[in-house]
Amino acid sequence: MAEILKGAAAAAALDEKTAEAVHLLKIRGITPTLGILRVGERPDDVAYERAAVKRCEKLGIAVRLVTLPAAVMQGALMAQIAMLNSDSNVHGVLMFRPLPAQLDEVSACEALMPVKDVDGITSGSAAALYTGAGKGFAPCTAEAVIALLEHYGVVIEGKNAVIVGRSLVIGRPVSMLMLAKHATVTVCHSRTRNLAELTRRADIVIAAIGKTESLTADCFAPGQVVIDVGINYSESKRKLVGDVDFDAVAPLVGAISPVPAGVGAVTTAILAKHVVLAAGGIV
Amino acid sequence: MAEILKGAAAAAALDEKTAEAVHLLKIRGITPTLGILRVGERPDDVAYERAAVKRCEKLGIAVRLVTLPAAVMQGALMAQIAMLNSDSNVHGVLMFRPLPAQLDEVSACEALMPVKDVDGITSGSAAALYTGAGKGFAPCTAEAVIALLEHYGVVIEGKNAVIVGRSLVIGRPVSMLMLAKHATVTVCHSRTRNLAELTRRADIVIAAIGKTESLTADCFAPGQVVIDVGINYSESKRKLVGDVDFDAVAPLVGAISPVPAGVGAVTTAILAKHVVLAAGGIV
Repeated sequence: MAEILKGAAAAAALDEKTAEAVHLLKIRGITPTLGILRVGERPDDVAYERAAVKRCEKLGIAVRLVTLPAAVMQGALMAQIAMLNSDSNVHGVLMFRPLPAQLDEVSACEALMPVKDVDGITSGSAAALYTGAGKGFAPCTAEAVIALLEHYGVVIEGKNAVIVGRSLVIGRPVSMLMLAKHATVTVCHSRTRNLAELTRRADIVIAAIGKTESLTADCFAPGQVVIDVGINYSESKRKLVGDVDFDAVAPLVGAISPVPAGVGAVTTAILAKHVVLAAGGIV
Repeated sequence: MAEILKGAAAAAALDEKTAEAVHLLKIRGITPTLGILRVGERPDDVAYERAAVKRCEKLGIAVRLVTLPAAVMQGALMAQIAMLNSDSNVHGVLMFRPLPAQLDEVSACEALMPVKDVDGITSGSAAALYTGAGKGFAPCTAEAVIALLEHYGVVIEGKNAVIVGRSLVIGRPVSMLMLAKHATVTVCHSRTRNLAELTRRADIVIAAIGKTESLTADCFAPGQVVIDVGINYSESKRKLVGDVDFDAVAPLVGAISPVPAGVGAVTTAILAKHVVLAAGGIV
C-alpha cells in the first residue's frame, strides 16, 4: 500500500512559517490582508472561500470580502477591483473564476494590480512563471503540488514528471514549476494518444484533468508518486473523488495524495503565504 | 535515407504570402519597416543581420539599422529603443541578444513597445505564448520550427514531441507552440537522466541545446521527424553543424532538417512575416 500524502501535514508546516512572518509584520504595524472578490454563489467558490477565511483567521491574516451578484455588469466589477487595488491595506486579492459569461474575465484579471496578484491570474504573473524571471506568484494550487511533494521529501530534480492536463490554472503552471525544479516534464492532454503508456513510465504523475477517476490502475506502475489535483463529485459514490481511481491505484504505487485532504488542503496555506509575502513578510 | 527538410522551400512558400501582403500594404501607402538594434559586432549577429536585411529587401520591407558600440552604456541604448518606439514608420524591432554584460537586458527588452516586439522578447509576448491568449509574437526561431514541420506536412496533433533544451529563445517557446498544436510535449534538458531513451520514443524530436552533434544515433529511431535548431561551429569539421550528428542519424530516421539550410533558413522569413503583420498586413 502506498504512502498517503495527506495535505494537512504539509499545510501545517507551511502555516508555522507563515504565522511567524505574520507576527513579525504585526510588530511593524502591518496586518496582512487578503481581499476576496466573489461573483455569484457557486458552491465550489463558497467552500474554498470558507476554507481560506478559516485559515487566514487562524494565522492572523485579515480578510476583506467583496461579493457581487451573479448578474453584475462589468463596470461594477471593475469598480470593485479598482477599490481593492487602491486600498493600501489590502495586500493580496483572490478573485474567483470563471466569472459569469456576461463578464470579460481577461479585462478583469488584467485590471488587478500585479503586486496583489496572489493567485497568479495576471499576464505579468504568467510571464514570470514562464520565463522564470521577474516578479509574480504562481497559481496557489499549482504551487501546492510542489509544496506537497517537497514536504514529503520527494526528489523532483532529474525525475520524469508526467502532467495530465494543460489548463492555465494547474497543468501549465505546474509544468513550469516542475521544469524550474529540474524535472523532465511531459504535458499530456485530451489529444494525447498513448496516455496510459506515458503515465506508466513516469516517476511522478500529476493528474489535473477534472475527469472523475479517469486515471485507472493501468495508467500506473509500482514506486510512482501520484499527485491528484482533481476534485470531482462522484454521483455513484456520493462523495468527492479525484481524477485518479484511488482505491485501485493506491495499492499499486509508491505514494499518492488523497482527494479530499490532499492538494486541496495545501492550497489555502499557499494562498496565506502569498498574502504575507505580498505584505512584505519573509516566509 | 531520411527526407531532408530543407528550409529554403518552406521560406519561399512563406515569402510568397508575405510579398503579397507587402504589396497590399504599399497600395495603402504603408512601407513595412524593420528596425534592427545591434550592440557590438558579434559574428553571429552580423551574419543573421545580413540574412534578415537581404530577405527584407527582396520582399520590399524597409530596414532601419541602428548599431551601437559594444561598450555602450544603458542610457544610450534606452534612448535608441525609445527612438524606435516613437517612430511610427518603424513597425517591428529586432534587438540582438545577449547584450554585453554591462547592460541590463531585462530593462532593455521591457522598454520595447509590445506591438513592435516581432521577435517575442517582451514579457507581454511571453505571457501571450504561455497563456495562448492576448497579443504577441513568438520568437522567430521557435515559430520557424513549426513552419518547417507544417510546410512538409508533418502532423503535429496527437504526436509525441520531445524538445531537447528549455531556453527562452527556443526550448520553452517551441514547447508552447507544439502544445498549442496539440502535440504531447516532453521538455528535456541538462538534468534529464534518460535522454536517449526519451528521444527514441518520440514521433518528433526538436534539438535545441547548442551542443555540437551531441545527439547521436542511439538517440533516434526509424520513422522519426528530427528538427535540428542547433548552430555550432565544429572545429574538427571546420564547418557549421547542428546539435544532431547528421551523418549518423540521417540514414536512420524518417526526416531530418539539415544545418545549415534547415530551420535557420526559415527564421528570417518568419521575421519578415511578423514585421508585415505588425504593420497591419494580413499574411
